Amino acid sequence: MAEKLSISGHTKTIALIGSPVEHSMSPAMHNAAFDKMGLDYAYVVFDVQPDDVEAVVKGMKAMGFAGYNVTMPLKTLVLPYLDELSDAAALMGAVNTVVVKDGKAIGHNTDGAGFMRNLKENGVDIVGKKMTIVGAGGAGSAVFTQAALDGVKEIDVYNIRDSFYEATEKRIGELAAKTGCNVTLHDLDDKDDLRASVASSQLFVNATRVGMAPMEDGCTLDEDMLHDGLAVADTVYNPRKTKLLAMAEAHGNKAVNGLGMLLWQAALGEKIWTGQEMPVSYIEEKFYTD
Amino acid sequence: MAEKLSISGHTKTIALIGSPVEHSMSPAMHNAAFDKMGLDYAYVVFDVQPDDVEAVVKGMKAMGFAGYNVTMPLKTLVLPYLDELSDAAALMGAVNTVVVKDGKAIGHNTDGAGFMRNLKENGVDIVGKKMTIVGAGGAGSAVFTQAALDGVKEIDVYNIRDSFYEATEKRIGELAAKTGCNVTLHDLDDKDDLRASVASSQLFVNATRVGMAPMEDGCTLDEDMLHDGLAVADTVYNPRKTKLLAMAEAHGNKAVNGLGMLLWQAALGEKIWTGQEMPVSYIEEKFYTD
Repeated sequence: MAEKLSISGHTKTIALIGSPVEHSMSPAMHNAAFDKMGLDYAYVVFDVQPDDVEAVVKGMKAMGFAGYNVTMPLKTLVLPYLDELSDAAALMGAVNTVVVKDGKAIGHNTDGAGFMRNLKENGVDIVGKKMTIVGAGGAGSAVFTQAALDGVKEIDVYNIRDSFYEATEKRIGELAAKTGCNVTLHDLDDKDDLRASVASSQLFVNATRVGMAPMEDGCTLDEDMLHDGLAVADTVYNPRKTKLLAMAEAHGNKAVNGLGMLLWQAALGEKIWTGQEMPVSYIEEKFYTD
Repeated sequence: MAEKLSISGHTKTIALIGSPVEHSMSPAMHNAAFDKMGLDYAYVVFDVQPDDVEAVVKGMKAMGFAGYNVTMPLKTLVLPYLDELSDAAALMGAVNTVVVKDGKAIGHNTDGAGFMRNLKENGVDIVGKKMTIVGAGGAGSAVFTQAALDGVKEIDVYNIRDSFYEATEKRIGELAAKTGCNVTLHDLDDKDDLRASVASSQLFVNATRVGMAPMEDGCTLDEDMLHDGLAVADTVYNPRKTKLLAMAEAHGNKAVNGLGMLLWQAALGEKIWTGQEMPVSYIEEKFYTD
C-alpha cells in the first residue's frame, strides 16, 4: 500500500456513490490523475443504497464535497435532490457527475459527452450526419441525447420492445422537439429496417452489453451491413476489442472502442470539478496498457 | 505530493468534521498510522458549519463512513443527531469520536481517556487519589469526567466565575452523584483555596490555554505550590514544554506534556473504528520529533 500522507486538512474530497462500487477503477484513475496534475484532491468511494440517496445528497452538500460521481443504481434516483441540472442531464434523466458550487449541487452527465469527445479524438466527425445506435438503456440514452445536443442530424435508435419502449419513444420525441435532431426509436427485431438505417449512416454504435462477457461472442451488427464510410463504435470496453470492432477492423472500417468513452467521461468530470482536464493518455497508459 | 493510489473501491473512509480544520494534523497522523498498520482506510477532512450538523451526521451514516472525529465547534452540537452515546460522552456532553456500526452512529469521547492513558504510560497512577485541575472548558471537562469515571477519589476543579460557572457546577454535581467521585467546582480567584487543594493532591492539571501562545509566559500554578509527590500535567502541547512543565521539571516533579493526550485520543479513536490501536510511538517519532 502506498502512503496516503498527502491528504491534509486542505485536501478537497471527491467521491463515487452507487452500489456495488468496490471494484470500481474510478478511485485509482482519479487519484492518479490528481497526483499527476498536482491537484490536492482525494477520491473515495461510498456504497450507497437507493433508500439513502436523499440523506447522502444533502449530507455531501453540507460536508462541502467538491463533487462526486454517481453510478448504478443511483444515476436517475439522485435527480429530485439536486439543485440544478445541465441540459444533457435533464434530457437524459440521469446524472453521473455532480459538482457542489456556491452551496448548490449541480448534476451533469458526462457519459454522452465522453463518447462524443472520444469520437472526435479518434477522427470521427458525425456532426451534421447520421448515426444508427443499438441500445436505449443508460449508456445508449446518454450517447444519443448528447449526439442530438451536439448537432448530429439524424439518429435512428434501436431497441427491443421491452417494457420501457413506450416511455423511451416519448422521451425521444421530446428530445427531437427540443434539439431539432431527427431522432427516432425503432424496433430492433426489424432487421430490414436496421439494415436500411445502417446503409445510410456514417456511424454505427453498439450501446448494449452484447460483446461483453457472457455475450462476448455476440455482435449487434451483421457483417454484410458494413459499408465504406461507416465508422463503428462500441460502448463496451471489456474486452477492448469486441467481436463488433474486430469485424469492423477486418473490413477496414474505422473502429472506436469503449475505453475512450470511460476515460473521457472521467476527464470531463474532472474539468467540471477542478477546471482542469485529466491527462487521458497518461491514465490510459498507466492503467489500460495491454 | 505522495500518490494516493492506495485508495480503491474497498477503502473505508474516516473523516474529521469541524471548522476550521484545514491546519489539522489528524489526516497526516491517521493516514500514516493506517498505512503503518496495513489497514485500508483513508482519513479526510470536511469544514462543517453548525447549521449543517444534522445533514452531515445523517449523510455520513447513510454513506457508510466507518467513523469520524468531531472537533470545534461541533463537539456538543452533534449530540442530538447520534443514535447512542458512551457513558463518558453522555457525561461530558461532548463527542470527539463517532463510530458507525450496524447502521447506528455512536458517539464517544476519547479526549479524557487519552489523557488518562497517557498519564499511565508516563507512570503516573492517580486512581484512588486526589487531583487538582484548572480549567472546566472542553479539555478540562473531558479530563475530570474521565478521571471521575476511572476511579480518581477526589477532584477539585478550578475555573473563573464565567457565565458558564453555574451550569458547570450543576454538571459536576451530577458527575459526583453518578460516579461516587468527590468532584467539586471552585473559584480560581481563591488562591488560598487552590493552594490548599494542590497541597493535598498527587496531580495538578492545567486544562486552560495558559502556556500556549499568546500566553506562553503564563502559568496556572505558583512555583511555591509545588511539593514532593505532585505530578504535573498540561493539556497544552504547543509548546511541548510549557512554562508550567519546565518549572515542575526544574523542581524534580514528574511533568507530563499535552502531546501524549493528543496522540492517545487518536489511538483510542482508531481502536474504536478498527479494533486496533495506533502505533503511538511511531506517530510521535514521525511527526513530533523535536
